[in-house]
Amino acid sequence: MVKIAIMGCGVVGSGVADILLEKSEELSRKFNKKIELTRILDIRDLKGTPYEPFLTKDANEIINDPDINMVIMTIGGEEHAFTLTKKALEAGKHVVTSNKEIVAAFGRELVETAYNNSVRFMYEASAGGGIPIIRPLNICLASNDIYEIQGILNGTTNYILTKMYRDKMSFEEALAKAQQKGYAEADPTADVDGHDAARKIAILSSVAYDRFVDYKDVSCTGIRNISYEDLELSSANGFKIKLIARSINKDGKIEALVEPLLLGEDHMLAKVDSVFNGVLVKGSYTGDSMFYGKGAGKLPTASAILGDIIEILTGSSEHSLPGFVKEKAEMTTSKQDSFRFFVRLWKNSISTEEMEKIVVNSFGKVAIYCGESEVNRKKAALITGYLSREELDKKIEELTKSLNIKVENVIKVED
Amino acid sequence: MVKIAIMGCGVVGSGVADILLEKSEELSRKFNKKIELTRILDIRDLKGTPYEPFLTKDANEIINDPDINMVIMTIGGEEHAFTLTKKALEAGKHVVTSNKEIVAAFGRELVETAYNNSVRFMYEASAGGGIPIIRPLNICLASNDIYEIQGILNGTTNYILTKMYRDKMSFEEALAKAQQKGYAEADPTADVDGHDAARKIAILSSVAYDRFVDYKDVSCTGIRNISYEDLELSSANGFKIKLIARSINKDGKIEALVEPLLLGEDHMLAKVDSVFNGVLVKGSYTGDSMFYGKGAGKLPTASAILGDIIEILTGSSEHSLPGFVKEKAEMTTSKQDSFRFFVRLWKNSISTEEMEKIVVNSFGKVAIYCGESEVNRKKAALITGYLSREELDKKIEELTKSLNIKVENVIKVED
Repeated sequence: MVKIAIMGCGVVGSGVADILLEKSEELSRKFNKKIELTRILDIRDLKGTPYEPFLTKDANEIINDPDINMVIMTIGGEEHAFTLTKKALEAGKHVVTSNKEIVAAFGRELVETAYNNSVRFMYEASAGGGIPIIRPLNICLASNDIYEIQGILNGTTNYILTKMYRDKMSFEEALAKAQQKGYAEADPTADVDGHDAARKIAILSSVAYDRFVDYKDVSCTGIRNISYEDLELSSANGFKIKLIARSINKDGKIEALVEPLLLGEDHMLAKVDSVFNGVLVKGSYTGDSMFYGKGAGKLPTASAILGDIIEILTGSSEHSLPGFVKEKAEMTTSKQDSFRFFVRLWKNSISTEEMEKIVVNSFGKVAIYCGESEVNRKKAALITGYLSREELDKKIEELTKSLNIKVENVIKVED
Repeated sequence: MVKIAIMGCGVVGSGVADILLEKSEELSRKFNKKIELTRILDIRDLKGTPYEPFLTKDANEIINDPDINMVIMTIGGEEHAFTLTKKALEAGKHVVTSNKEIVAAFGRELVETAYNNSVRFMYEASAGGGIPIIRPLNICLASNDIYEIQGILNGTTNYILTKMYRDKMSFEEALAKAQQKGYAEADPTADVDGHDAARKIAILSSVAYDRFVDYKDVSCTGIRNISYEDLELSSANGFKIKLIARSINKDGKIEALVEPLLLGEDHMLAKVDSVFNGVLVKGSYTGDSMFYGKGAGKLPTASAILGDIIEILTGSSEHSLPGFVKEKAEMTTSKQDSFRFFVRLWKNSISTEEMEKIVVNSFGKVAIYCGESEVNRKKAALITGYLSREELDKKIEELTKSLNIKVENVIKVED
């Protein structure tokens, strides 16, 4: 008999409770082990809800109950959730969580605590929401050397970018829409500045490369600087702009970053729109694999937690300590590499023909002048040939010598 | 210590041997259990290959060796592979296979034999090649009611369709190209008539719906009747034609079929080109998830087998008998439902304007006349509104009363 307690009956926690209430019997039969929802920790009374009979406000009632052998940690934030998780593990309870903050900040310590107490700490739901990705990396693709992960890991920003493009909105308008729909929080910093995606790519990278990637080492650029014109002009040239969280494993060193990128329309992640997430994994044997699905939301995230519960039910009691607990990754940055760049321009009274000449003069014939925006003729863009950042900066200096041209945004092209 | 024997050192078997020879030590360390390649069964001598030291021509040397606890079954075909698999399981050895014929035809018996002998029969590589899909269905999505699976599960036909479209080739030309490249066999029946995809959708459906779906109950239409003009004219109207293996779980009954379908360009499977495979899973909690990757090939398939090996290493020795062993699915067909249809026409001396009128006269204003092919003006197509098969047949009869119009192909539209 596996007795389960849920800590935090918010969006995800209540989703887990709903599934357990609906499915415990069926899953018990299917996997030949009885599971049962026993307790729910929440500060609220939740009168009249199906959760009421299970409620307690005292975490110790769960921690100190020797009959409870599994805790679902769906409290948000760092400190409190971490403390309770650690206590639960030390009390010999498995813990399953969707809280990416604690996984990113304390994952190593918690995995080790679990190991030392012969229980498991599982976090499939902490990256990619309902998409099965941690387990495929851990088991299915485990024989591969993974050399790159690219992901759309934040549904809020992906919704904003999709909305901006489809409805010709500014970033601010689309953000307001996302907040109205409950896709973005009142303080949207964690999402729009890329910190949420940074935590998730750090988690996935640690699992995939078997060495610890600290989310604080992930270089982060968000989407505040993306304008509708960027989306319009890149799209007219066969590209989509996506906030990509990515890590590259090369020569034993890892580079990890979150940044907007122009993706060619054939890129599998270019088709991942709105609140969906996608993760592209490049492995030595499998080549490219992609995992796609809902990256957030009550039931998709709860479904991922149920996957972990079932893994614990059906898995071995023995397990080994993953490499990322033992070893920290050596990080690098690819400042020297060359890329193509999308450059958004502001221009004053310069015709298309003149601009084409100016662009070729500064950037050479490999550069493409994307033309002017249909909604604002003063906004235009170009796509350079392959350049280093340094070369780009020099050419931009040259281009903007004229008082009639300014550079407003620069985005890398992935191809 | 897990001693592994490979039966059949063909494309996939040699891939598994290569990975084991390269990675056994690393994987043993990582998962804290020693694994070792011990024996390879093959009828050939394979002199001078890295496999030579392990070779035997006598299966009994493996079956009767009590030290060998895992067999990798990569012999093709049904009878021989089945007999050896059964013997290995009865001898108390885990079996991992990529052979979809034995999984589709004898999966229930083999899973039960494994269960009765307290070992495992695993087959991640039998559907979707290198794509992790069986394990995500079995564990990660296990709390969901799965109500539909759609897959591009055959790389050969997907390569042929992609090649036909990109290089303006006939089916026969593209098939020859695929055979030349080793993507299609001399007798391509199993691939091009959909039987291979039928086996795979039957396997995935049995796992997802927890009831046995017999591949013989999968209604099968292949791609022999697809012409370049079909691809050209559907593409000009925003569609792609893909061979889709699909099953629908509705009101306790299951419909399973393999057929070419027109997919809208926004459909996630529309982007799955060439030898890649993709599987779209619709779950009650997760909504749409998609899994994408290489569906065949030496190392991708071997990687999936390694995933199963690692699952056995790290998994529990206890496991339950899956529902599909115990219960057969009740099958259904949706003959009554209505669809839009793409209809390829042959027409003689009828202008575009006239054809537009004829199409609207027969099919109503909801029908779209797609125009004529650029490579053959006598070939044209239309897309109907929603109709039942019966209504379609009536309207076609009406349309082809004229001696100057024939209907050459009909394909359902998925939307």
